Amino acid sequence: MEVTQANFKAVLPQIEQAIRDCLFISVDCELTGLKTEENSVNTFDTPKQYYEKARKDCKEFLVVQYGITLFRLDETTDSIKHKSYNFYTFRRPINHFIQDKRFLSQTSCIDFLIQQSFDFNKLFREGISYLNNVEEDEWRNTIKEQQRLKTESYNSNYNRNHDIVLIPEANQEFIDDVVKQLEAFLASNESELQLPKCNSFLRRLLYQTNSEKFHDKIHLRAHSVNSERILFATKLKCKEESEEIDRIFFEKLKSELDDYIGFSQVIRMIVKSEKIIVGHNFLLDFLHTIDKFLTPLPHDYLDFKDVVKSLFPAVYDTKFIGSSQHFKSIIPSTVLGQLVHTVTTHPFNLPPCEIEQGGQGYDINDSKEHEAGYDSFITGLSFLAMWKHLGDQHNLILSDLIGRRGEGLLKPYKNKIFLMILADNQFLDLEAPDQIVSRDHVFYLTFPKEWTTNNIVQLFSPFGNVYVSWISKTSAYVALYKRDQAALALKTLCQSDTYSIITFARRQRQLAGADLSGTVQPSPIKRRIITNETTQSKRNKTGKFEGSSIRMSKRSIEPIEEEAQSDEDEDNFTASKPRTFAECKSWD
Amino acid sequence: MEVTQANFKAVLPQIEQAIRDCLFISVDCELTGLKTEENSVNTFDTPKQYYEKARKDCKEFLVVQYGITLFRLDETTDSIKHKSYNFYTFRRPINHFIQDKRFLSQTSCIDFLIQQSFDFNKLFREGISYLNNVEEDEWRNTIKEQQRLKTESYNSNYNRNHDIVLIPEANQEFIDDVVKQLEAFLASNESELQLPKCNSFLRRLLYQTNSEKFHDKIHLRAHSVNSERILFATKLKCKEESEEIDRIFFEKLKSELDDYIGFSQVIRMIVKSEKIIVGHNFLLDFLHTIDKFLTPLPHDYLDFKDVVKSLFPAVYDTKFIGSSQHFKSIIPSTVLGQLVHTVTTHPFNLPPCEIEQGGQGYDINDSKEHEAGYDSFITGLSFLAMWKHLGDQHNLILSDLIGRRGEGLLKPYKNKIFLMILADNQFLDLEAPDQIVSRDHVFYLTFPKEWTTNNIVQLFSPFGNVYVSWISKTSAYVALYKRDQAALALKTLCQSDTYSIITFARRQRQLAGADLSGTVQPSPIKRRIITNETTQSKRNKTGKFEGSSIRMSKRSIEPIEEEAQSDEDEDNFTASKPRTFAECKSWD
Repeated sequence: MEVTQANFKAVLPQIEQAIRDCLFISVDCELTGLKTEENSVNTFDTPKQYYEKARKDCKEFLVVQYGITLFRLDETTDSIKHKSYNFYTFRRPINHFIQDKRFLSQTSCIDFLIQQSFDFNKLFREGISYLNNVEEDEWRNTIKEQQRLKTESYNSNYNRNHDIVLIPEANQEFIDDVVKQLEAFLASNESELQLPKCNSFLRRLLYQTNSEKFHDKIHLRAHSVNSERILFATKLKCKEESEEIDRIFFEKLKSELDDYIGFSQVIRMIVKSEKIIVGHNFLLDFLHTIDKFLTPLPHDYLDFKDVVKSLFPAVYDTKFIGSSQHFKSIIPSTVLGQLVHTVTTHPFNLPPCEIEQGGQGYDINDSKEHEAGYDSFITGLSFLAMWKHLGDQHNLILSDLIGRRGEGLLKPYKNKIFLMILADNQFLDLEAPDQIVSRDHVFYLTFPKEWTTNNIVQLFSPFGNVYVSWISKTSAYVALYKRDQAALALKTLCQSDTYSIITFARRQRQLAGADLSGTVQPSPIKRRIITNETTQSKRNKTGKFEGSSIRMSKRSIEPIEEEAQSDEDEDNFTASKPRTFAECKSWD
Repeated sequence: MEVTQANFKAVLPQIEQAIRDCLFISVDCELTGLKTEENSVNTFDTPKQYYEKARKDCKEFLVVQYGITLFRLDETTDSIKHKSYNFYTFRRPINHFIQDKRFLSQTSCIDFLIQQSFDFNKLFREGISYLNNVEEDEWRNTIKEQQRLKTESYNSNYNRNHDIVLIPEANQEFIDDVVKQLEAFLASNESELQLPKCNSFLRRLLYQTNSEKFHDKIHLRAHSVNSERILFATKLKCKEESEEIDRIFFEKLKSELDDYIGFSQVIRMIVKSEKIIVGHNFLLDFLHTIDKFLTPLPHDYLDFKDVVKSLFPAVYDTKFIGSSQHFKSIIPSTVLGQLVHTVTTHPFNLPPCEIEQGGQGYDINDSKEHEAGYDSFITGLSFLAMWKHLGDQHNLILSDLIGRRGEGLLKPYKNKIFLMILADNQFLDLEAPDQIVSRDHVFYLTFPKEWTTNNIVQLFSPFGNVYVSWISKTSAYVALYKRDQAALALKTLCQSDTYSIITFARRQRQLAGADLSGTVQPSPIKRRIITNETTQSKRNKTGKFEGSSIRMSKRSIEPIEEEAQSDEDEDNFTASKPRTFAECKSWD
């Protein structure tokens, strides 16, 4: 079902019910962009470094479509029922207390979406708003503070708490003229006076002047007339009337807040439900889900894991499952569209699946790839098929699969997120320390900016073939194919004025050394998101996190370029210098 | 007439003819955003500082619609004929040699455009591409370089000039299988072999492997099949056949370049025509016009003036004209929609205007404000009306107005661009040094971060009212209403441990001092844009401009906040700290 601002409130109760009833929830996001220019992942990054880069990308781009599919076991028919929702998400400017948002787009992503018939007009016109907990708190506090100041000002002059604006000579005549009109209005029997059209600066001058001259006699308020802002003057019987007008205004602002929380309510319901959540190649989508709709992603990697633990008990990534040892011999490709076709045919044995009666959903043969709702559906279907495959090997029937035995089969895949590009099949472990992989065969090399891959390959040729992963124009990680040559290579190559070589481990210690400017102690983050307390923002105010914030920005100013692994579709050219990845997500 | 990629090539010749025939050209842009968060203009900025900030904003956002209207004197009927074009401009990703563009949007601008029925789907699907001269040169050079490397590689191995990618263990079986297929294909009578579907990384591995094993026997090329990239193998009769295939490919790339120049051709035609160009509140639109479609805006302000001089002989800003001494008594508002209504009624006397026969244009009563084409039309109409008004005062008939005498009347307004927000009606003078205005009554004040406007007002109260223009949380410019109190105020207030006060002039010297890291000598920029020589990029390579680039970034890291002058439409609140402008352009 397509959900926009137009039907959001109406369908929210049925979504809540569906979340409560379901077995698991699969999700998918469409984004305005994947990565900033200066922020590429390196093959030999650690999961922590990967997170720090992905977090940064996540801050720049928007989620413009969010798909969720809810899968339920129907015990009467012993089949799976599913329904899907496809939300357009876009936050229009709220009001001038809250800075209007700037967001980045990547033309390739926009082009990709438009090729998939994404409707940007609908997005911008009917997108559902959202706020994370910190934004919501900020807004509540702003309203409270404004109301407090306003209350204080009832007994003083408007201008005491306002910046005083100089009336430019050119506008003095206009202002004087309006003052005359207001004087006449006060003396008249009229109840309302429409002031002449004027721009926002003149309106500002008029508020100021009105407060100076007619403080407790006239109230000014702007209304839209034919899409122009027009000032209207009304008479105040007493001071209290002005206060009442403002009280109503602030109440309206507060009630509007719920509208602005919008789509975040759905994600909060999911958190509250503690249901299994499933994504495909899930990292970016998962980070956006937290950052945009729940709470800003922490700078610190361990804090991030704490946040996740407090929010989601069980997260699965179908790309991680599909590329695992258990499945890789029977799943030739984990690209989503190919994965779902593989796991819905022999030797896989999908249980009977139907669209929930009275609900709306997709069929696997709908050609709607990259509509978030459809992608969430085929992600969930893939998850179910692989889960069922595990159950079949243990002769579990469908209702057993859903029980504790069945869930136990998923344990090796629980809370593990696939990480594209990284060597050694590393993944992000949401609930445990990351695995430690040997990098003894990897070196950190710096060299003159004229060097190309060939120079590096030549240098290492006595020790066999190498894999070069560029970091900048003058540095790269170099991995030996023959790992046993590592010690000899280091010993042989370590004396040079032209280049420098150190082990991967030593390089990591160097980077970590630069990290020691502040000692960050992660502390548990309670499950406060859904009860709407401001854990995250309070913690930030303690300054504890500023250390990691500074380190982050230091790291990010290093120029990082990646080795060319871009798509060679249209060409087959010689590249003398590294290029950047064309697209991460096109590989998923 | 609406112009998209679909009809652009077809209408380009008539546009060229219309530019050649016209008297003047009025233009208007719709943008994805106006200003970055950290980059606000201060009331007491100099035109140079204003330019430096506007330039920075200009780099972040896109022009998504460009309107031009061409006005022509029809001597047979002694009337003005006009026609308008409304171009959608958007550059889709070109290819992976050229980094796909990231661009910023401001939600308020997107919302504004969507309210005006702007069609974003059309924009992203059918927008016309564009390149400025530096982007065009870069692309030409990249193609040339790739072709050179390719030619060199004919006699060597593919991998000599490529980064060598390690084949992950998991993919080895797939690669081995394809190698077997390719061996069988070589031994067969087939002329083409479709390889199995695979992602871009696997395709990269296949290119590499093919080059290793079948270098001069098999050629691989990807084609789109059902919107998926599929590799096809063809047999090579001889080495020369491979060269020929690549030669054709490079020719195709070069011819595509003209398509990508796209809309820039229109602006180049306008430059070449040396016709009068007119905009309303023109600065941002003018800067985008140069930066996006002609040549990147120089860091240095004087270089910018040189560039403009070499490109446009006569530029007019209707907001500057309308707010000038001559007109301000008869033009109450220079907001475009109000301006055009003022100048098309008494005492103005618009000459007869008609849409060009066979052309398409607008009527003033079309409700299409903020469609770039319509806005360019009413801008041109306003210009014509004010020009005509000047002519009427000298009893010039329409044909005289167009001649040298008529143009002479415009001299006080020529090449002067209105600058919003600045005090003292300052403007940007495109052909002469900027006017020097007295700032003897303005001080630069620094103070504790707890201070509000009231503290400052209190501090200066012995010397009358002040105007406070916030710079940061701890600094502001303070202007005295009573200018003659300046010396006394400085003398009285200069001794304090709580705050510091210096004159405006001294502050400017401080800022200029920070500028002296490199001595930049502007040199004339020749009119090379339209002949497509790379003046700008060559100059950049000399390193001459790097000094100003560094200074620029130093300056931009200073936090700058502006005094609250935002629209008070929806409220009338007390503000204890400065806020930023909600919108500059909403004031125009």
